[in-house]
Amino acid sequence: MATTIPHHDLKRPAPEALKSALDALAARFGNKLITSQAVREQHGHTTTWLPTQPPDGVVLAQETADIQDVVRICAARGVPVIPFGTGTSLEGQVNAPAGGICIDMRDMNKVLEVHAEDLDCVIQPGITRKTLNEYLRDQGLFFPIDPGADASLGGMASTRASGTNAVRYGTIRENVLALKVVRGDGEIIKTGTRAKKSAAGYDLTHLFIGAEGTLGIICEMTIRLRGIPDTIAAASCSFETVRGACQATILAIQTGIPVARIELLNAAQVRACNAYSKLTLPETPLLLLEFHGSEAEVAEQSKNFAEIAAECGGGAFTWTTKPEDRTKLWQARHDAYWSVKAIRPGAGVVATDVCVPISRLADCVGETEEDLARFNLTSPIVGHVGDGNFHCSLMCDVDDADEMARGEEFMHRLVERAQAMDGTCTGEHGIGQGKQKYLKSELGEEALDAMRAVKAALDPQNIFNPGKIIPAG
Amino acid sequence: MATTIPHHDLKRPAPEALKSALDALAARFGNKLITSQAVREQHGHTTTWLPTQPPDGVVLAQETADIQDVVRICAARGVPVIPFGTGTSLEGQVNAPAGGICIDMRDMNKVLEVHAEDLDCVIQPGITRKTLNEYLRDQGLFFPIDPGADASLGGMASTRASGTNAVRYGTIRENVLALKVVRGDGEIIKTGTRAKKSAAGYDLTHLFIGAEGTLGIICEMTIRLRGIPDTIAAASCSFETVRGACQATILAIQTGIPVARIELLNAAQVRACNAYSKLTLPETPLLLLEFHGSEAEVAEQSKNFAEIAAECGGGAFTWTTKPEDRTKLWQARHDAYWSVKAIRPGAGVVATDVCVPISRLADCVGETEEDLARFNLTSPIVGHVGDGNFHCSLMCDVDDADEMARGEEFMHRLVERAQAMDGTCTGEHGIGQGKQKYLKSELGEEALDAMRAVKAALDPQNIFNPGKIIPAG
Repeated sequence: MATTIPHHDLKRPAPEALKSALDALAARFGNKLITSQAVREQHGHTTTWLPTQPPDGVVLAQETADIQDVVRICAARGVPVIPFGTGTSLEGQVNAPAGGICIDMRDMNKVLEVHAEDLDCVIQPGITRKTLNEYLRDQGLFFPIDPGADASLGGMASTRASGTNAVRYGTIRENVLALKVVRGDGEIIKTGTRAKKSAAGYDLTHLFIGAEGTLGIICEMTIRLRGIPDTIAAASCSFETVRGACQATILAIQTGIPVARIELLNAAQVRACNAYSKLTLPETPLLLLEFHGSEAEVAEQSKNFAEIAAECGGGAFTWTTKPEDRTKLWQARHDAYWSVKAIRPGAGVVATDVCVPISRLADCVGETEEDLARFNLTSPIVGHVGDGNFHCSLMCDVDDADEMARGEEFMHRLVERAQAMDGTCTGEHGIGQGKQKYLKSELGEEALDAMRAVKAALDPQNIFNPGKIIPAG
Repeated sequence: MATTIPHHDLKRPAPEALKSALDALAARFGNKLITSQAVREQHGHTTTWLPTQPPDGVVLAQETADIQDVVRICAARGVPVIPFGTGTSLEGQVNAPAGGICIDMRDMNKVLEVHAEDLDCVIQPGITRKTLNEYLRDQGLFFPIDPGADASLGGMASTRASGTNAVRYGTIRENVLALKVVRGDGEIIKTGTRAKKSAAGYDLTHLFIGAEGTLGIICEMTIRLRGIPDTIAAASCSFETVRGACQATILAIQTGIPVARIELLNAAQVRACNAYSKLTLPETPLLLLEFHGSEAEVAEQSKNFAEIAAECGGGAFTWTTKPEDRTKLWQARHDAYWSVKAIRPGAGVVATDVCVPISRLADCVGETEEDLARFNLTSPIVGHVGDGNFHCSLMCDVDDADEMARGEEFMHRLVERAQAMDGTCTGEHGIGQGKQKYLKSELGEEALDAMRAVKAALDPQNIFNPGKIIPAG
């Protein structure tokens, strides 16, 4: 998170190069090239405090050949290319600091193949998570990664997204089998096959996952699916302290209870949810859980977790398999962002995330809550507690310079705290522009050197989403 | 698999450069530098038909600083460096086609930290799987990846190993959180933290996993652990056909039964196991299974699988939680290699593997069995059927040119068949020298270009395990 764009020695393309590119794109794409101010600003729009940096044009790609042609036209003229899914990234990933052409993937939203027996499917990158799961439902299948937003799968891959289900199903990293990626000359790199595992050569799939479009443009994905579980149970349990909730989570994972979701809401977040979703939850730290399996498995999992929760000072443990009750409980979690917005309707809300070893989570959340009090700031906390990953939703009045300064300092200390606990500055939001300044303290200059070398090797022109991830040397 | 080393335009270091390196290493390492013919040949030894290519010297590294110094001494003189774990790789990964210095990791076998609450530990790369699990047992923890051989963890990471447990726990790819890697100037790249997930920058961890030591030398690993399950049950079920066994596996996975292991033995392999391990299993395709969980979970999983097996034409389903019975059953599987060796004691046995989408596994195994008959060859088949991954143990008399030629043709057709089914030429053995010729047909020239670019970016001198993975351009 930052209010200022990190400095890169990026030059905008020369005006004549840009004009030539736009002319060529207009000739090739007609009204699928959009250059209106409003549309360009939508595509540079960020959900953070970072200023918007619109691209010079937006192409609505319809098929892989369109992506290839945009890349070829732009590369020939040194014009940047930025892929765009739904624009729900949180660290300025779709900003265009040197201008260039945004490739909007919204129309590349087809499911190309479903292989039910293999539990995989081949998709275009613009399809969103909800659309995909609606498509798959009749076949009893689903894609488990749920970052909250109805993001595109290409965007999720590019930012290495995860979310509430990751504790059981892994992040998107564990759920992509292969990619096709358009490289700088417009040709396509195929990174894998439909085999569930492979030891054949460098892991290009995982190199492009999380690369935020800086190494090439994903044009096709082969992803893993799961069978929709027979039974889904939702449960909740209040705790007196965050530490008790974390301890219950640690024990549950150690004993191998395959919880599908286990979410921590701190007292401030429960308060916000009660107000927004008209609930009457005790306003203390809360765990929200989901169990997947056969009826017997789910019952066993719930029983085992209830025993652990009781040992850790948990209050009443309620669970249900009724869809309407499940929905009500989880809707409150999904509406957490809106519940925060409702606390101070005028304020800007910035979501940021860190991730620490789970043994340090209670300390990290506790010290973060102390910091909020010290800086007189408001930020409910929700956590994917099974992964040690948590989010702050910090409210600041963007016109209040003092509050903004305190907000920045709070965010900075949050990252430092997580890194000091052998954690990461971002568990699932990515680096984008906002967190570049934290990469060196996390991984060291040698890792940055390696990243720079890889970037230069695969994108020697620096046309793919320049100014992202890697800080200037 | 190949009998000939792939051609690379590799030059051995100039004699004076090599002598200078050996002198410097001798001064630095004393008797930890070994240059005897016998030891050098052990370290170039391959378990395949590939000829041995010994290094010029072997250094027994004791700590990270030793690796750094070997790399610095060698890099300054253009001398190759090859990491060595236990020498159990199967595609010539530890051969030294241009000579150079082998770094033997056997003494770097310490567990540096165990974080039981976080289910992770930090280790040196030379520790073997069995040593690690003995160390962890008292804490109720284990590392789930089991490639069969008692391989070193660094070797497993470098070849992207997996094995019988991968269907439930993933491959080593999903179970490494972070690496430290010595780069060409002897400095150390840190690829991650102990956070269970991260979206911070390019995924260097996964770039080094499976790189077979060609991009740098792994000197420390942070890996994920699991709690030892309360109850482990073993089961077996015979089928009339491979197709029936595969269908049962597909249904089990689709319905979400979390089998911990599910191994297919074809009739020839069952025959070999009966003979070697004094068993009386029906000599038809067999599934061997293992279930992990609480007592109730394991019982439920077994019952559900038994129902599926019966639907798919399975015979008697036997299961047990008694350790001695479990051991007896699985020992036969673990001794599969030796059971094959015993069929024709004089013959060379080469293990090779491919991996296909599970829906194609029955076809792939069936056509492979037909090929064996056509070429008059013997090769029992075992498969990690939950992953679509299977192994042939091909027996050939290395002095019988005709049989060897038929063996090579069989292996070649096996890979072509797997790739035509959208599978991979290797699920878990790696590319090394033996399978370089198959990378292009699998992923295309563009992927090879990307791999070459990454290699040149991170190892511009080409001193790290040269001549491996990427075929000459």
